[in-house]
Amino acid sequence: MIGRLNHVAIAVRDLAAATRIYRDTLGAEVSAPVPQPEHGVTVVFVNLPNTKIEFLEPLGENSPIRAFLDRNPDGAIHHLCYEVEDIHAARDKLVGQGARVLGGGEPKIGAHGKPVLFLHPKDFCGTLTELEQA
Amino acid sequence: MIGRLNHVAIAVRDLAAATRIYRDTLGAEVSAPVPQPEHGVTVVFVNLPNTKIEFLEPLGENSPIRAFLDRNPDGAIHHLCYEVEDIHAARDKLVGQGARVLGGGEPKIGAHGKPVLFLHPKDFCGTLTELEQA
Repeated sequence: MIGRLNHVAIAVRDLAAATRIYRDTLGAEVSAPVPQPEHGVTVVFVNLPNTKIEFLEPLGENSPIRAFLDRNPDGAIHHLCYEVEDIHAARDKLVGQGARVLGGGEPKIGAHGKPVLFLHPKDFCGTLTELEQA
Repeated sequence: MIGRLNHVAIAVRDLAAATRIYRDTLGAEVSAPVPQPEHGVTVVFVNLPNTKIEFLEPLGENSPIRAFLDRNPDGAIHHLCYEVEDIHAARDKLVGQGARVLGGGEPKIGAHGKPVLFLHPKDFCGTLTELEQA
């Protein structure tokens, strides 16, 4: 069912510092910051040859990553995102096997403009797992 | 400098359970377990179209991931591994920029039989970062 690893998301307090580390120290191609107020984050994309790293910085008072950063002040990997062909078919299969879909179970439009859903970390090896319709 | 994301490593207490989740629930291609006593882990590889997930289970009394799992009993992402062309050149550039290389700074032969080194998480956005010579 799952296909490509679409991205690894790393939450940080300071996107400019993360950009310096990945662009200047690690020599990667890093995008300009992209504010996504509807998701409560500003995002920077690190374009690797085979996948992306996405750095997330809190945006606004109700950012969904603020509490995570309070627990992980140095930053930390926040989630993995896998591509699926059909998000509703994936959801139905997962729910049928007892996996918990966060946020009511209906796919929402994610940060890339495609339908996504998030799976409960306790059901997936302690890892917050996003599925995105490719 | 960094190239492909070689793998995402997830530490778990129970490789068989992780295999069931990724093979049966997520429908991915999962290898048989590979004991690596010289690294203190048993590894299962999840082969995605563009990269790998590597599940690590402690092997032996002195496994380097045992304390990590004590802190993360559900499992958790342990590190990211990026490929580099020349591990010594990468090390020299990183040390020159003030980054800390773990374990004395000399590359060692890693789990894939290639030279690797690990970078201090506090210098890399709270993420334990492995470099592997491709």
